[in-house]
Amino acid sequence: MNTRQSPFVTDVMTDSREVSRLAEKFPRVRATTLELAAPLSEEDCCAQSMPDTSPVKWHLAHTTWFFETFILEKFEDGFGPFHASFRVLFNSYYNGVGEKHPRPQRGLLTRPPLSLVREYRANVDERIAAAIVRHGNDRHFRELVELGINHEQQHQELLLTDLKHLLSLNPLLPCYRELPPLPAAAPVRSEWAEFAGGVVEIGAPALSGFNVDPGEGIHGGFCFDNELPRHRQYLSPYRLATRLVTNAEYLSFIEAGGYRDAQWWLSEGWDWVRSNAIEYPIYWLREGDEWREFTLSGEQRIGPEQPVAHVSYFEADAFARFSGARLPTESEWEHASAKCSMEGNFLDQRNFRAVPAARNGLAQMFGDLWEWTSSSYAPYPGFQAPEGAIGEYNGKFMVNQYVLRGGSCATPADHIRASYRNFFPTSAQWQFTGIRLATDN
Amino acid sequence: MNTRQSPFVTDVMTDSREVSRLAEKFPRVRATTLELAAPLSEEDCCAQSMPDTSPVKWHLAHTTWFFETFILEKFEDGFGPFHASFRVLFNSYYNGVGEKHPRPQRGLLTRPPLSLVREYRANVDERIAAAIVRHGNDRHFRELVELGINHEQQHQELLLTDLKHLLSLNPLLPCYRELPPLPAAAPVRSEWAEFAGGVVEIGAPALSGFNVDPGEGIHGGFCFDNELPRHRQYLSPYRLATRLVTNAEYLSFIEAGGYRDAQWWLSEGWDWVRSNAIEYPIYWLREGDEWREFTLSGEQRIGPEQPVAHVSYFEADAFARFSGARLPTESEWEHASAKCSMEGNFLDQRNFRAVPAARNGLAQMFGDLWEWTSSSYAPYPGFQAPEGAIGEYNGKFMVNQYVLRGGSCATPADHIRASYRNFFPTSAQWQFTGIRLATDN
Amino acid sequence: MNTRQSPFVTDVMTDSREVSRLAEKFPRVRATTLELAAPLSEEDCCAQSMPDTSPVKWHLAHTTWFFETFILEKFEDGFGPFHASFRVLFNSYYNGVGEKHPRPQRGLLTRPPLSLVREYRANVDERIAAAIVRHGNDRHFRELVELGINHEQQHQELLLTDLKHLLSLNPLLPCYRELPPLPAAAPVRSEWAEFAGGVVEIGAPALSGFNVDPGEGIHGGFCFDNELPRHRQYLSPYRLATRLVTNAEYLSFIEAGGYRDAQWWLSEGWDWVRSNAIEYPIYWLREGDEWREFTLSGEQRIGPEQPVAHVSYFEADAFARFSGARLPTESEWEHASAKCSMEGNFLDQRNFRAVPAARNGLAQMFGDLWEWTSSSYAPYPGFQAPEGAIGEYNGKFMVNQYVLRGGSCATPADHIRASYRNFFPTSAQWQFTGIRLATDN
Amino acid sequence: MNTRQSPFVTDVMTDSREVSRLAEKFPRVRATTLELAAPLSEEDCCAQSMPDTSPVKWHLAHTTWFFETFILEKFEDGFGPFHASFRVLFNSYYNGVGEKHPRPQRGLLTRPPLSLVREYRANVDERIAAAIVRHGNDRHFRELVELGINHEQQHQELLLTDLKHLLSLNPLLPCYRELPPLPAAAPVRSEWAEFAGGVVEIGAPALSGFNVDPGEGIHGGFCFDNELPRHRQYLSPYRLATRLVTNAEYLSFIEAGGYRDAQWWLSEGWDWVRSNAIEYPIYWLREGDEWREFTLSGEQRIGPEQPVAHVSYFEADAFARFSGARLPTESEWEHASAKCSMEGNFLDQRNFRAVPAARNGLAQMFGDLWEWTSSSYAPYPGFQAPEGAIGEYNGKFMVNQYVLRGGSCATPADHIRASYRNFFPTSAQWQFTGIRLATDN
Repeated sequence: MNTRQSPFVTDVMTDSREVSRLAEKFPRVRATTLELAAPLSEEDCCAQSMPDTSPVKWHLAHTTWFFETFILEKFEDGFGPFHASFRVLFNSYYNGVGEKHPRPQRGLLTRPPLSLVREYRANVDERIAAAIVRHGNDRHFRELVELGINHEQQHQELLLTDLKHLLSLNPLLPCYRELPPLPAAAPVRSEWAEFAGGVVEIGAPALSGFNVDPGEGIHGGFCFDNELPRHRQYLSPYRLATRLVTNAEYLSFIEAGGYRDAQWWLSEGWDWVRSNAIEYPIYWLREGDEWREFTLSGEQRIGPEQPVAHVSYFEADAFARFSGARLPTESEWEHASAKCSMEGNFLDQRNFRAVPAARNGLAQMFGDLWEWTSSSYAPYPGFQAPEGAIGEYNGKFMVNQYVLRGGSCATPADHIRASYRNFFPTSAQWQFTGIRLATDN
Repeated sequence: MNTRQSPFVTDVMTDSREVSRLAEKFPRVRATTLELAAPLSEEDCCAQSMPDTSPVKWHLAHTTWFFETFILEKFEDGFGPFHASFRVLFNSYYNGVGEKHPRPQRGLLTRPPLSLVREYRANVDERIAAAIVRHGNDRHFRELVELGINHEQQHQELLLTDLKHLLSLNPLLPCYRELPPLPAAAPVRSEWAEFAGGVVEIGAPALSGFNVDPGEGIHGGFCFDNELPRHRQYLSPYRLATRLVTNAEYLSFIEAGGYRDAQWWLSEGWDWVRSNAIEYPIYWLREGDEWREFTLSGEQRIGPEQPVAHVSYFEADAFARFSGARLPTESEWEHASAKCSMEGNFLDQRNFRAVPAARNGLAQMFGDLWEWTSSSYAPYPGFQAPEGAIGEYNGKFMVNQYVLRGGSCATPADHIRASYRNFFPTSAQWQFTGIRLATDN
Repeated sequence: MNTRQSPFVTDVMTDSREVSRLAEKFPRVRATTLELAAPLSEEDCCAQSMPDTSPVKWHLAHTTWFFETFILEKFEDGFGPFHASFRVLFNSYYNGVGEKHPRPQRGLLTRPPLSLVREYRANVDERIAAAIVRHGNDRHFRELVELGINHEQQHQELLLTDLKHLLSLNPLLPCYRELPPLPAAAPVRSEWAEFAGGVVEIGAPALSGFNVDPGEGIHGGFCFDNELPRHRQYLSPYRLATRLVTNAEYLSFIEAGGYRDAQWWLSEGWDWVRSNAIEYPIYWLREGDEWREFTLSGEQRIGPEQPVAHVSYFEADAFARFSGARLPTESEWEHASAKCSMEGNFLDQRNFRAVPAARNGLAQMFGDLWEWTSSSYAPYPGFQAPEGAIGEYNGKFMVNQYVLRGGSCATPADHIRASYRNFFPTSAQWQFTGIRLATDN
Repeated sequence: MNTRQSPFVTDVMTDSREVSRLAEKFPRVRATTLELAAPLSEEDCCAQSMPDTSPVKWHLAHTTWFFETFILEKFEDGFGPFHASFRVLFNSYYNGVGEKHPRPQRGLLTRPPLSLVREYRANVDERIAAAIVRHGNDRHFRELVELGINHEQQHQELLLTDLKHLLSLNPLLPCYRELPPLPAAAPVRSEWAEFAGGVVEIGAPALSGFNVDPGEGIHGGFCFDNELPRHRQYLSPYRLATRLVTNAEYLSFIEAGGYRDAQWWLSEGWDWVRSNAIEYPIYWLREGDEWREFTLSGEQRIGPEQPVAHVSYFEADAFARFSGARLPTESEWEHASAKCSMEGNFLDQRNFRAVPAARNGLAQMFGDLWEWTSSSYAPYPGFQAPEGAIGEYNGKFMVNQYVLRGGSCATPADHIRASYRNFFPTSAQWQFTGIRLATDN
């Protein structure tokens, strides 16, 4: 069995069960993307706020391109592209596919119009649905569809974070949509959960590089290649904070002069703070004595019990040091999460922001905010990227980025799992990122 | 008579005649702007291709802002702004008005939506029309309305050049609108028109800093402050080429290795060529053996007899040196143009590109392409900028830019005159700029 | 026992034995620095080739500053500085000490003159020698002197790599000193050494955060704080190449188009190659059909059996992928090195360049070239930086850098050990860096 | 008579008189350069503070290169270069000569050592002296020697301004040499000198492109090509301030908030002030309530009656506007200077700084500080650059720079004249530049 050809693995349910599952999941996930874009105008969908972000329209097109390029090109008889130039225009970073449009110029693509991109989606949706019927018995086909669906879900989150960044730069501080009010709740104390460590298993539960037991995985057994292979790690005893750091706690760091005191910062972080004149998290602003923040519902007062969000790795690390603690490693986080339920504040709740912890005990591990770990994004021992362009999905980014775990309020609930590895550079601020403290035990 | 308060001067027609004229001209010019934007989508109107350019929507709003801020704020009883935030949002560069939105971020303003900007235009149009009725007898009011109209016309040209730059960066090479075919015509030879020089008068014909004789000016006597005062200059004998340099002529420069030979270039121009790897004009491209160019109608074959367009000052200067000639000074150009008719290829013809010279003798002085002069943009002797924010209109840009003369295929015919001074930095390529050669005599 | 106060640990030899050892080692190491600078003129010592490097004179002064600031300020009665301004001028990066001169401007310090810096060295040498006599019984004092000596040795290597970079930019390709010829030797084949892995101990052998058994450590027990604490890691089975990658092997990568093929490169590495137009290692150049390289003895023909040197992490990683292998982790490297002898090609041999492997079996682990590992530079579990400014020595750099192991031809032999962790950013090319391949087993 | 071959013109004294003059002047001027460098160490001579400046050693070598390349290569029988690589190494900007070492890396040339550059000077001095004997009767040879001497004098001034900039960046604020005290003098009031204007002659007095009347010119008739041809200009009536603007006057601008008020600044100047956080002239600093400045003698208290020095064009223009005045044009300045004596504070006085005006009436026109004019550096009507590489001396810089007139305290007295045109970009601060006000009359 050649693991090089099946890196994004699915389970071995009987074919027909799997075909039914995909036939239901594919249109459902695709529809969610459109629903997220629904409140937005053509203009809102076209603009790009910085090279790291992409326009909403580009997300709508690129996710479609993924299905067309990696599935239809291969499986569709007499394949012809929806539009000759889209192969280059909506290629994100796959050198194996060929040329690509320069990333910083995505916001200049006023053509194709949004309406044509919607047609593109409808067209490919129909063809993928037909292909599921025709090729659903082919396990490799199913793996690629499952990969495309998970890829679409990643871009649902990016669509929201990129949109939030764009709107935040508009002096009108526009509202994407009215958010539901937060439940009133008593503050929850942060305590230390203790873990003994030892030799543990890390990575997605898979045999020979892909899952054979569909019951073992959380969501039908899918995982990305970067979660494989499952392998052993030795952990020294450690402790994790039972909830995320709150705005009130982070504010005490700001008010203690944390952003003006080199001792809390990594050297590169201190340069970052000074050269960008950073004084508080990216979406915060001060009006008189009041701290406010930009949200997807416009500007709002900061909730003291809400988890502090949109912090960079540098800020997370500095706060941890200020607190006499450190960030967890990704192995510590994954090991600790094994016993946690997958309940949380996900995209499905449509809160579009992190909410205060609601209970004692190890909480908020999944959902609310991605949690920075101190682990550099690196291949696991024995990691093999798949062959071909699809092998560029994860592997080529494994340098100078740090791993985040647990998903956020913008992550679909059926997209996350304990072994999931997100990754961003240390200066990234525009994702739904937060802080969980750790210490040695 | 205080010239500081009337720098953008109008003539002294009887008030009622002037009121009628403005009541007709104002809505006509405003309507042209909307007509130019008509073929464009919301998306097309929102994007910004580089910091030097602005989105179409921004042009639509800023020209309206100009009328609201400089006229309605002053003349309207119980003035209230159309939208509280527009005063900052659509302020281009007037420090005297107050804060302004950062220029490089104009393309991020997906809100206000295009529809609201159109409402803004309609609202201000109505209020200005009412104000013309009420305040038309006030000469200073009329001067400001005339200034606002001319400002609007300047932005009509910028709207087109900015749009062309944006579309050129789209790999789909989109078509803004189908252009009419060029008339078939025999090539016209370039010859030298000779001028004796001596002490000449330069600048708009005005007494005491503004026009008193409406018959003397070309368009009701309006001119910008930078065309005043009319003053004397001494010109040595000189010669001007009778038509603009053609694509065929410019191609011979390229094919002779002109872009790889330092001897033709100013030192700063040579650095510009090398650090930007420039090999031909910005909208040219080579397909096999054929030279093509991007136009407002998409990509087309280059017309050998068409004037070479979109050249920077550096390119114009290098070509002139290669040709054993030089660029004219702005005084030479203005003196020579005195005898030329104002006929030409303007925005009004809707050609949207330069066309071949149609006759012998000094031709193409007006319209087709702005002609680079070797004159640095500087105040005329005795120049006084108006007081207040309106004084920032021209004066503060009088450094490190060069004067262009004559208008282009994107200039409204009733906006240009012999004394008109356009100006751009030496590296600007995206305007409708061309080359007329000169020599000493 | 408070490990926070003794992070740079020394052994517990009886005091008098230790005093004798330092009284001999301190002047010997300091003299080596001067010997390395001896062939250089005032001018050679003053220039700085890029912000990452420092002038030789600065190295001479800063290492002296280290002794003066961290030892004499604390231990000398009636301490007065050699020169009032040196505390700021030669502070490298210690925020805890106070202000510092901007790093990119070190080459502008033509004053103090080299002669005064030499006086500064002599003065501080004398005062430290006196302090060793007076305070040698104080274990913390001895630790700081040992730290200062090791700091000096690190700067000996940097002095040479910074100098090499400076001279390489001079078109005269100057010779620092004549290098001895390489011994003629038969090529040695690269084979795989196999390791079973399992739970291993990593880090300097120390109890409670510092060494108690002087016999266990390699050089009197000193180690840096970043090597502590010794802790457990789980290693999967792996293999290491028995020698470094040679110039001939690397040339086959170049000639196979390795620098033009995205598939071998990390995404960030590919951007680095393209935006810097990199085609071969930094000191290589091609003359006709011959590959040559700049050395500390001027330009020379490339030796095919010599290890390829001065490669960045990106290049090392790309070559490994091209070879169907990977880079080792730092734990793999350290575990494998346990059985290797410390013999090698160090600064002491005065070869000033890497030499071909001389024998079969796991070779070249120490000396010749620093070996890039795939491990991001991170704190070990339980790591504690020392308190105060000295705590900035290593800890604040633990992000976005990668660990190198084993020392080089510019490393003093008594400075290196199996647990030693060097670190540089992924784009660094000017250090004596090389490649050892690894694979899973 | 072909003016293209004699652009740097000399007079027509009898040959022997001219030979004697050059035989005396050449070694005298060359010796002055060495005298200026005498107080400096090897290190001082090697460093380069920014790309716009050059090391002292480079000035010593480049001026020598000029004689070797433009004279000895042409006139010396069996010419061989002093050093094969110097032709590239010390070529400043002459593309016609061939390759050149990159300007920003001049400070990295620790080799050749200063001692070899001194040998280079001695060698070329001897050979030029011999050539004067052999070829002195050749008028073109004499013109080139005179050009080389004037070139040397230009670099004497640059040597001092570049050195001042370098030393100013050293926190030790080093002293180049002790300066003589300023004479105590009563303050002199600034008044307006009035000029009627009309058609005037501008440019060096020369017929057919070179001087025929040695008595008419000031220094044996030499001028640069950019001062030719003499031509007519029309001047409107104007007024010039009788002395330079003083530190006290400029301080009133600072204290009135001039650097924080956009209304005084050109748009590009305001960007320059804000993006560089400029608050006062480059060498000023504030200690408590006292204003001090860095001089070639270290830091000193500001003299209120001394002319304000080291201002950029932007600062000069802003101050003029603040004062209700403007800068003069270069023609106004030249016309006004015709009646002024050439007495002044030059390099010859060894004051190394500007001194207060000593008398009423139009003063300080020559010496003390270069005076910014509002004239963009442009070719005069009929200007022809010489053929060959020497034609690059001035002509290729005639864009985006502004003309300065009158010489400074670092200009040799026998180097300046009324028609002399110096030029720098608008942001240049490190030259000895000052402000003379003008107004219309």
